[in-house]
Amino acid sequence: MTLYVNLAALLGSRIENGFYRPGDRLPSVRALSLEHGVSLSTVQQAYRLLEDNGLAAPKPKSGYFVPMGRTVPALPAVGKPALRPVDISQWEQVLELIRAVPNANVIQLGRGMPDVSSPTLKPLLRSLASISRRLDMPGLYYDNIYGVQCLREQIARLLLDSGCQLTANDLIIATGCSEALSTSIRAVCREGDIVAVDSPSFHGVMQTLKGLGIKALEIPTDPVTGISLEALELALEQWPIKAIQLTPNCNNPLGYLMPDARKRALLVLAQRYDVAIIEDDVYGDLAYSYPRPRTIKSYDDDGRVLLCSSFSKTLAPGLRIGWVAPGRYLEQVLHMKYISTGSTATQPQMAIADFLKGGHYEPHLRRMRGQYQRGRDQMTDWIIRYFPQGTRVSRPQGSFMLWVELADDFDTLRLNRFLLDQGVQVAVGSIFSASGKYRNCLRMNYAAKPTPLIEEAVRKVGATITRLLAEKDSTIG
Amino acid sequence: MTLYVNLAALLGSRIENGFYRPGDRLPSVRALSLEHGVSLSTVQQAYRLLEDNGLAAPKPKSGYFVPMGRTVPALPAVGKPALRPVDISQWEQVLELIRAVPNANVIQLGRGMPDVSSPTLKPLLRSLASISRRLDMPGLYYDNIYGVQCLREQIARLLLDSGCQLTANDLIIATGCSEALSTSIRAVCREGDIVAVDSPSFHGVMQTLKGLGIKALEIPTDPVTGISLEALELALEQWPIKAIQLTPNCNNPLGYLMPDARKRALLVLAQRYDVAIIEDDVYGDLAYSYPRPRTIKSYDDDGRVLLCSSFSKTLAPGLRIGWVAPGRYLEQVLHMKYISTGSTATQPQMAIADFLKGGHYEPHLRRMRGQYQRGRDQMTDWIIRYFPQGTRVSRPQGSFMLWVELADDFDTLRLNRFLLDQGVQVAVGSIFSASGKYRNCLRMNYAAKPTPLIEEAVRKVGATITRLLAEKDSTIG
Repeated sequence: MTLYVNLAALLGSRIENGFYRPGDRLPSVRALSLEHGVSLSTVQQAYRLLEDNGLAAPKPKSGYFVPMGRTVPALPAVGKPALRPVDISQWEQVLELIRAVPNANVIQLGRGMPDVSSPTLKPLLRSLASISRRLDMPGLYYDNIYGVQCLREQIARLLLDSGCQLTANDLIIATGCSEALSTSIRAVCREGDIVAVDSPSFHGVMQTLKGLGIKALEIPTDPVTGISLEALELALEQWPIKAIQLTPNCNNPLGYLMPDARKRALLVLAQRYDVAIIEDDVYGDLAYSYPRPRTIKSYDDDGRVLLCSSFSKTLAPGLRIGWVAPGRYLEQVLHMKYISTGSTATQPQMAIADFLKGGHYEPHLRRMRGQYQRGRDQMTDWIIRYFPQGTRVSRPQGSFMLWVELADDFDTLRLNRFLLDQGVQVAVGSIFSASGKYRNCLRMNYAAKPTPLIEEAVRKVGATITRLLAEKDSTIG
Repeated sequence: MTLYVNLAALLGSRIENGFYRPGDRLPSVRALSLEHGVSLSTVQQAYRLLEDNGLAAPKPKSGYFVPMGRTVPALPAVGKPALRPVDISQWEQVLELIRAVPNANVIQLGRGMPDVSSPTLKPLLRSLASISRRLDMPGLYYDNIYGVQCLREQIARLLLDSGCQLTANDLIIATGCSEALSTSIRAVCREGDIVAVDSPSFHGVMQTLKGLGIKALEIPTDPVTGISLEALELALEQWPIKAIQLTPNCNNPLGYLMPDARKRALLVLAQRYDVAIIEDDVYGDLAYSYPRPRTIKSYDDDGRVLLCSSFSKTLAPGLRIGWVAPGRYLEQVLHMKYISTGSTATQPQMAIADFLKGGHYEPHLRRMRGQYQRGRDQMTDWIIRYFPQGTRVSRPQGSFMLWVELADDFDTLRLNRFLLDQGVQVAVGSIFSASGKYRNCLRMNYAAKPTPLIEEAVRKVGATITRLLAEKDSTIG
């Protein structure tokens, strides 16, 4: 990572976090040069990057300022999930979301799909092609059940950035983060067990719990600081919880970064009640701040954290390459991996290892983070413009998805049916809850570069919401 | 399939099945030409093919004869597994087999690995490479959870050969046959349930049952006709069995083809006791006889058969592409697939669809079947030469693995430890049993073309067995 990018990231996060307010003058180039021990031109480069990201605006002869604030909508409210374990439903609604075939005629704002059209992915495609042309055809063989050695070495290196000191031997490659999560859950839990989850929570995990006959205990979650430790402690006191499953970094769907102090406190809680933590970090590398956030795993000193991740959000989901760092549960996860898919496909593992080794990952991430951060602001602006007043919107600190909260009694399931006719699809909120809460919420993807077509789709969503709200009012009236 | 290949396959299976005995004169070229309505040169081509396969030998001016029998060793005995459900063990031994990294210094006679060095696989590699070079990068996207449409259509076409009338919509693509089997088992069974299995049986299924807390009820299995229907009926009478899991075609590890009448009878039994059948057909396309054998699924008229298969044995395991035809359990398998790996990798699906559509599959299979059949005979000859007298050996009707049975009290676990020092590995028999039976058996792979190196490895296995037997005798003496 070059100096100016570091500096820009630092300044950017100060601006983002309100340390400098809209209209404030930012430190002079000279002052920053002295403070950080870098050249004047490095600071200038950093400011240009901030300018590109819409975080700084130059005024001739006066230096750089924080642009006058866009209106930022209110954050979603903290849910009050019922504090008892429940059996999970909503499979039908998830199925509706995932069975949709990629279709040029439908703008799928609901999927968790990253932008895979970036030219920074080209070296990956070249690797895939060149492995296919090798005469010894390594891609055709079974590999070691742990996964390709050189990929595990590269991932161990990446994990240093999130504070984890792990080796290749601590890792098992999986078929996407889905398999990482499901093998972890199965390694720790049995049918009838209870797992505490952040709420709202990734629908894939909800459905895994359902499929395994495990009950979910939904813990209220703050849209800025994450899972409520107070509510969690109460739950641990009351129920025989086996594991805590959560996404502390760039949470799906809320987008927050759980503060480090709370990550440590969560670990202490887990130790006190002797439960495992299944940590989903699939979006962690897409945090807009630099350096990337730490994982709970990075504090783990007794092997109780199973860290799950993948390249599906950072590179491409079609590759289906993820990994687990299962701590003390390594042997059990290995067994579950073996019975789930045998081994993982060889060729994509080799291609990703090439890509990482060739130094292509960091520049790619840098580009995507910038694009996604701009995408968030654009999508937020559109929602302000096209959605009814009072709409609450998350403020993601990474990844590429927005959580939108409408009036309490609004029904997004009904909304989606009207939208499908218009060639638009959103993810309904209820699939992010074990018990079908969040029916008045929806999740929207802003990974793709903004286009008039996407703006039109967002406008349609807003107009349909407005119409449905008006209809309801007139019915009541 | 051309005429002469059909004719050779027909004659070959008659010879194989003992209709013509060693030393018998085979029908004249003229007689066959009349009988089958084909030209003389077609018959001559068929005989040349049989000659290549070692099934016919020309005598000048006298026609073709069945070669004077090689000594065929006795078949393995029918096991007498205890008729009660057991919890499964042997994970440590399976782990030893699968954790072995591909290593040029160890001849792995134990793995279920096909020969992937055939030039007939080249079009597949070309497809993989060309998909990677496409500008729209389809391999990077999530596909539909059911799997790529054009691949499902091609598989539905292939399934016609085994007597199945299915459409693309009846199929779900999986990450190898492993995922096909584990999603099927989870779709039908819960923790604590009982599944009846053929015994010996594929270790992957054993470990899946173990991982899911399901008990296995091992049914005795005949090395020629397969699972004992009499014992199965008794078991169904006595126990609340949820499903029957078996590999009726080119059974792993015994290699038999279950006769069609017994397949039908098994289905009738399953209907009478209302249990599901989970049919593993992963080796079915590698049967040496033509046309390829029917599946139990092909007789299924009420959707109770879940047919599982993959391209791991016919094309290459590193691709990790399999499928399920789950019948009435489609919805449940889809759910289990979703929570297991989300969707299946896109690029290998597209490449295999290209390969099938391009007509490359049948010629490839034809070549591999011939190679494997010759491999079986070669490996059998080596065992006769190098193994102690009294060794029993299976006579596979397809696939590429031999089951070898040694004296009752022989310990193949101990054997394998001695072999590893000599750079050879076999699969110990106990992993093919839920309860650790078959410790005196081993499985050997004959997929690779015979080489002096492999012969030397087989010789080492035989010599080590002989030495261990002698040691034991002297200890007893």
